[in-house]
Order: sequence, then structure tokens, then C-alpha cells
Amino acid sequence: MPTAADIYGRLERRFHDIAVLGDTIRMLHWDQATMMPTGGAMARSEQLARLEVLRHERLTAPDMPDLLAEAEAGAAVLGPWQQANLREMRRLADQAAAVPEDLVAAHSRAASLCEMVWREARRKNDFAAVMPDLQSVLDLTRQVGEARAARLGVPLYDALLAAYEPGGETASIDALFEDLAAFLPVFLDQVLAEQDRAGQAAKPAGPFAIDAQRALCREMAMAVGLDFETARMDESTHPFSSGVPEDSRITVRYNEDDFAEGLMAVLHETGHAMYERGRPADWRYQPVGRARGMVLHESQSLLVEMQACRSREFYDWAAPRLQAAFGGDGPAWTPANLHRLAIRVQPDFIRVDADEVSYPAHVILRYRLEKAMLSGDLAVADLPGAWNAGMTELLGIVPPDDRRGCLQDIHWYSGAWGYFPTYTLGALAAAQIFETAAQADPAILPGLGQGDFAPLMAWLRRHVHGHGSRYGTDELLAAATGRPLDADAFKRHLRRRYLSG
Amino acid sequence: MPTAADIYGRLERRFHDIAVLGDTIRMLHWDQATMMPTGGAMARSEQLARLEVLRHERLTAPDMPDLLAEAEAGAAVLGPWQQANLREMRRLADQAAAVPEDLVAAHSRAASLCEMVWREARRKNDFAAVMPDLQSVLDLTRQVGEARAARLGVPLYDALLAAYEPGGETASIDALFEDLAAFLPVFLDQVLAEQDRAGQAAKPAGPFAIDAQRALCREMAMAVGLDFETARMDESTHPFSSGVPEDSRITVRYNEDDFAEGLMAVLHETGHAMYERGRPADWRYQPVGRARGMVLHESQSLLVEMQACRSREFYDWAAPRLQAAFGGDGPAWTPANLHRLAIRVQPDFIRVDADEVSYPAHVILRYRLEKAMLSGDLAVADLPGAWNAGMTELLGIVPPDDRRGCLQDIHWYSGAWGYFPTYTLGALAAAQIFETAAQADPAILPGLGQGDFAPLMAWLRRHVHGHGSRYGTDELLAAATGRPLDADAFKRHLRRRYLSG
Repeated sequence: MPTAADIYGRLERRFHDIAVLGDTIRMLHWDQATMMPTGGAMARSEQLARLEVLRHERLTAPDMPDLLAEAEAGAAVLGPWQQANLREMRRLADQAAAVPEDLVAAHSRAASLCEMVWREARRKNDFAAVMPDLQSVLDLTRQVGEARAARLGVPLYDALLAAYEPGGETASIDALFEDLAAFLPVFLDQVLAEQDRAGQAAKPAGPFAIDAQRALCREMAMAVGLDFETARMDESTHPFSSGVPEDSRITVRYNEDDFAEGLMAVLHETGHAMYERGRPADWRYQPVGRARGMVLHESQSLLVEMQACRSREFYDWAAPRLQAAFGGDGPAWTPANLHRLAIRVQPDFIRVDADEVSYPAHVILRYRLEKAMLSGDLAVADLPGAWNAGMTELLGIVPPDDRRGCLQDIHWYSGAWGYFPTYTLGALAAAQIFETAAQADPAILPGLGQGDFAPLMAWLRRHVHGHGSRYGTDELLAAATGRPLDADAFKRHLRRRYLSG
Repeated sequence: MPTAADIYGRLERRFHDIAVLGDTIRMLHWDQATMMPTGGAMARSEQLARLEVLRHERLTAPDMPDLLAEAEAGAAVLGPWQQANLREMRRLADQAAAVPEDLVAAHSRAASLCEMVWREARRKNDFAAVMPDLQSVLDLTRQVGEARAARLGVPLYDALLAAYEPGGETASIDALFEDLAAFLPVFLDQVLAEQDRAGQAAKPAGPFAIDAQRALCREMAMAVGLDFETARMDESTHPFSSGVPEDSRITVRYNEDDFAEGLMAVLHETGHAMYERGRPADWRYQPVGRARGMVLHESQSLLVEMQACRSREFYDWAAPRLQAAFGGDGPAWTPANLHRLAIRVQPDFIRVDADEVSYPAHVILRYRLEKAMLSGDLAVADLPGAWNAGMTELLGIVPPDDRRGCLQDIHWYSGAWGYFPTYTLGALAAAQIFETAAQADPAILPGLGQGDFAPLMAWLRRHVHGHGSRYGTDELLAAATGRPLDADAFKRHLRRRYLSG
């Protein structure tokens, strides 16, 4: 009779295969966004759909529940990493098994269709055109959420959120977001007033040659820690980070008029890649070796982009390199001025262009609205009005049209409900982690002033990346920073950066 | 009880999935050769090995023999394409099931290891260093061949050949190759004497900028029939053609000193791609929709590269474009002179650089030697001597070292025994098909003189590409050209092109 350790070993082999399938799926997605000619779309859908089915079949194999139960019954003989791995196996298998196959397929089809309609509706600024499809996606998303909620024994929204952030809870997000919603409008007014007093920062004059931008971005990504023996940097419509730890694939989009867009995107995606590369090598293909969730993932991209690379220290090192890259000249290129530009605050309608002070308002709005739609408190037809009311309340501006309002983001239309909060939770976590790291190792901040990210990355690897999914997000944060996620460090960071007082 | 048609339908769904897995495998190979940073090699091996196992598991599923037998028993109700599809399903399943799993794995491991040792041995010109590994690969290849031979009821060599060319037979190859081996040395002497009398053709002076070569190669590939909404052209160490019909991926390597190298490689790989793109769309994911085998595949690349694009007609159109691409000037750039350069004959040691007159000698030599090694008539230790003796007999030259002799090709070291004949059989088929096509449609040759490949490609699609694997190679050739494969058209072609008499 096989021992619990034997059974556990069988599970490890299965999950290894499942991880490799996931790696191939990521590579094909990368190719689709960077290399694939348009004509390849249908064939690629076939490939991805088939691989997803294979992965799902493995996660929901008929004997999986028995294997998990037997391994769990004898888990006392396993080591702590193995026990955590078994817990993660259970989580992934339960999540896959919770939703009936035909509901998964119906949701996926409705979302694909709605996403296509949305692209056209956004272009034409025609919310009504996408309403019926959005309603279908919402209905099916609710069913998926209910199926998962029943299995996991958590509220509907938490069940959807769990796909992106295991263990995430509406209750604690509500508290954090209400705190921020009270703090930010007042704070924003103070920042804008202070910015007005200080006057306009000088803007480097473009155009900025794409080749020069590309070389600069490579240099900066290497400074953070990427090396191009084990990574690529390409171009795509929306920047993203993909690939595998030994072969990171980050992408960027360049703007000839503003080099900061591409540069900040590369730093952001490099932060994601560094997390993946720092995952525990011994558990490379096991569930416990995966990144913990989207909150910590976003924290690592924002930590690099927002905390480290918009710090005053960083510009002491970066400014002369930026200047040299573009042959710039004059007062716009001083470290102090480039830093001022990097932290300029300007409330606007578009989330992805937002500064870090107004960004949480965009997320809080979406979080409130998607909860209300899921619970039935807000009808899809009433979304545009509710959107504009929320923008007025949180940022004091009203979008001139739905294209710059409730049509701007892909998430709801493509079925990704419950995702939005992870952006702002990630920003809070980034502040909390960076503050602790900079205090724990006094070499970190001076390092940034010399383009030396090694002390920062060493700390992150030890306290965040290297733990994979061994702990929950709050558990990991508590071990790394002394407390679970809160908004205190984020608020301290904002005050320090944006208010001279 | 399910009918034969039901069973057949189940088989179609299975083979559809198997084809999609094959498509993903090809995409990952393409990425590996063109995009992947070196650090990604191990992770990519994991991905490819896993996908190969999944494909093999499906081909050898426990119920596969029963399903095939039941469908075959009721095949009378199926249409002719379906019946041919069923025959191809049987062939693929038998081929996969013929060799025990552990022998497949042992052969694959030995070949991977030997290939690595070979790279170093070739670099150092040290055949002795790779001998033990080559012996292992030979022994395991023989075992694989014996297992397949027992299942298929054919001789050992034919069983290996069948993996590349279904239905290929030693008996007919022997006859064709003996004929060529008698014809070519005499013919070669005549050609060289005539070339000497005519004097040297003028050579365009380089260097030829890579960007200009790339633009030219794209233009030429498009003239043949590729469009870059459904294709990509990239660079790799060895040119190849991959991808899927809706998303062709061809690669090229440029030589700054000789634009013809890259250009001819692109035309060759475009020929392969056009075959894939012309496969019957209704059977896109079924075995009967696949390309017939490597003989016809190579015939299509050689038909474009050797028959069409080294024709005198082609250079009337291409010469001014080549001249414009490189800003060339002088007598080297006339259509007549560029054509003379394109058909220059010069026996040399290296197969891949060989002209079409001496190429068959390289293949005949390898075919004789690999048969002798497989039968035990030639010991691995005696390979270098036998190689040099064969080169003397067939081409009248002796390689100065093994690097330019029996170490030059990857095939034996990587386990691809039985592959070589398809190159020359493909050249014969190309001549036979092109001759028939040019007679059948008098617009074809004048079309080449105007860069219009449409008449040629239309004929090929109707008579070759569009049949997929519905017929055997000889059957298809007989229908298209009036007779099975022979060397007559090839010899006529050579006489016409190379002898003025």
C-alpha cells in the first residue's frame, strides 16, 4: 500500500506537468501579443483552448480528490514546504473543480464575444451597443462566483477575487478603501495647492528616438536586475511581463514625445519579472513555488516603478543617463527637475495614466461599482451615471464621454471581475515593504542613487520572492514588515513625497 | 450502439487535438531557434518533452486499436477523404505504438547527448571523440527500426525511412540512385568543361547591407505567394520553415558578402511554406490534411528555389530588382550574368553548399553509408575511410579533414537515419512536377519572367498541395505527371540547363 509520502510524490509529478503546461500557455500568449501576424489568431485560439483544456483535465482528474485526501491524512510526515505545497494543490484543484465545465466554457465564450463588441463600442463611444453582452458576462460571472463561493464557503465577491488573490476578503478591503477614500480627496487638494505654488517643472523637448529609448530601457532593466541571457524585451500594444523565470519576456510601448512612458513601463514590468525570477528554485514547478497572488505581484512592479524609480535618489543616478541617451541639454535634465516631473500629480479620467495619488480613487470607484453590479444593487443600464457620480465624489472631475468613463477598461467586458482591488492593495503593499526594506538595510536607498539595485533585490528575494506561495499574503507581510497589510506606510510615503511640510 | 460513422467522428476529434498539439510544438521550436534567450533552453526542453509525451499518449491511447478496427470494419459508409483519413490515422497510430516507450526515451536521450558531443567534435575535427556516442545512437536506431519493421512488415531501412516518407522503399531508391550514380560523374565532367570554355561570370561586389537583403527577401517571398499578414520572416543559424498554414514562420541567415545565400534560402523556405498553406482547408487538423511526406515537401522547396528561381525567365524580372536593392552597377547585374552565377557548378565537400548537379552525389554517399552501418556491413570506426573513398568515386575530391567529411551533417548524430534520400528524391520530383506544370499551363514560364508566380502556384495547389495526404507520393505523382517518380525529368532538366548542345 502506498504511503502518504508516495501519494504526495505522485501529486508532485502531476502538478509539475500542470506547471509546464502553464509555461507553454504563457509563451504562446507572449508570441500572440508580440510576434504573431494577425492571420494567426484563429489557429492560436485553437492551440490555447486545447492547452487550457488539458490543464483543466489534469487539475480535475477523477482520482484527484482521493489522492489529495490521502496525502492530507498523512501530511504529518511531510516537511513544511511540502505541507504548504499540498495546501496549494488543494486550493488549485478545488478552484478548478468548483465550476462545471459547461459554465466555464459559456463564461469564456461570452467574455470573448463581449470583449470584441467592447472594442468597437469603446471606439464609437457607444455604451448601449455593448450593454446586452456585458449583461451576459455579468450573469455568467455571477454564476461562476456562486459556484466557487459554495465550494469555498466565502461570499460571492471574495470567491471571484480569490482567483487573483487567494485569501483576499471584502471585509478588509472595504475598511482599507474607506480609509483611503476619506484621506485622499483632502490630501489631493493639498498636493495640488503645493504644486501650484512651486510652479511648472521644465519638460525635456522631444522627439525622443525609439532606438535611443530602447537602449536606455535595456540599460535600466539591467540595472534593476534583468540580464538578457535569460530575458527579452519586445514591443506590444499594452506592456506586460510574461515568460518563465529562466526566460523572462517583458514588453513595452514607446511614445516618441515622452520617453517616461516607455521607461516607466519597463521598470514596472521588470519588477514583475524580478518576482518571478526570485521564486524558490527548488519548487520551480510546484504550486508552492508560484508567486503568491496579484497583490504581491503588483506590489513588486510598483515597488520598482513607484517607490524605487520615482525616488529622489534614483534620479541622481538616472538623470545624466537620460540626458546622455537623448543628447539633452538645459535645466529640464537636472536630477531635481526630472524627479519633479516623475512625481507630478494631475487627476485625469484614465486609470492607466493616473499618478499614484489619484490612482486609488480609480480603483475604489471600480471596486464599489463591480460589487454593486454583482449584488444586483446596480443595473448595467445605470453604470454610466453611477460612474460619473463616483468620479465627481472621489476626484472632482466628470468624464466628457463613456469612452473616457466606464468603457475605458477591458476587465469587466473580458470577464475579469474582482481583479481591480489588487492594483491598489499592491500599491499599499509596495509602500509597506519598501519602507521596511529601506530601514532594515541602510545600503538600499544610497544604492539607488548609484544605480545599484542589488541590496534592494537581495532583501526582496529573502523576504518576499523566495517564499513563493508558502505563506498567505498577510502572513508573508507580517513576517517581512511586522504587520499585515494596512494603509499607514502608503500614507506616510505620500506625505513624505508630496508635501514639503 | 455507436455506428462506424460515430466511431470515425470520435477519431476525428482525437486527431484534431493531436494536430493542435503538433502545432504548438512547432511554434515552441520556432521560438527556440529565433527568439529564445540562451538561458531558456532547459525550461523549453521541459515544455517540448511534456507536449511530445501528451501527443504520444493520445496516439497510443489504450482504446485506439479498437476504435480504429471498428471504424475500419464499417469504412464502406465513409466518403473517400474520410477513408483516406482513416488510413492515415492507422498509419500514425501504428507508427507510435510500434516502439516501446522506454526505447523511444532511450533513443531520444542518446541522440540529444550525441548531438552535443558532435558539436564539439566537429569544431575540433575529432571523429574519435564522438564515436562511442554515435555507436549508441546507431544501436538504438537499429532497435527502433527493427521494432517498426516488425510492425509494418517492411525491411529495417524502409521502416526508418517511413517516418519521413511513408511508403518509401529501398528497392526503388536503389534503382534511382544507381542510375544517377552512373549518369552524374560523366555529366558533371561535361558541365565543368563547358563552364571552363565559357569563362568566369562577373561577381557583383559586396558588401550587401543586411537591411537591403531583408527588404529584397520579403519582396521575393511575396512574389512567390507569401503575405505578411499570415507569415513572418526571421533570422536563425540554419534557415527553416515552420509555423502553421495561417501563420507561416520562415527563417533565413544573411551573408554580407553574398546576397544569393539568404535570397535562395528564403525562396527555398517559401516553397515549403506554400505547400503547408496549400493543404486542404477542410482537413486542416486531420491526418489526411497533412503534407504527404518529406519527398514532396522537399520537391516544393526545390521547385521554387531550383526550378523556378534559377530559371533564365526569373532573372529577367529579378535582375533589375536585385540591382536596385543594392544600388549595383555594371555587367555583373545583367539578367544573363546573374543567371549564370545562379547555376554555377562547383563540386565541393559540403552538402548544404552544393549545386544541384553535385548534390545527388552527397546524398547517394550518405544513403549507401547509413544502410551499410545499419546492416552491420560498415563499422562506425571505418566511417571516415569509407566516406573519403565514396567522395573520390562520386565527385573526384577528398575532404581534407572529417570536419568537412563525415562530421559535417547533424543527421546521424541526432538520430535522423533514413532521412537523407528524401533530399534527392525531392529534387527528382521537383523536376518532374515542374516540367509537367510548365507544359500544362503555358502561362507559367512567362509568368516567372514577370515575377508572377500565380499560374505556377495555382497548378501546384490543384495537383499537389490541395491533396494533402489523400494519396501516396507515387500515386499523386502519377496523377499529376502521368507516371510515378523517376529520374528522367531531372536528367532532361540538367541537360537543358547546363549543356548548350
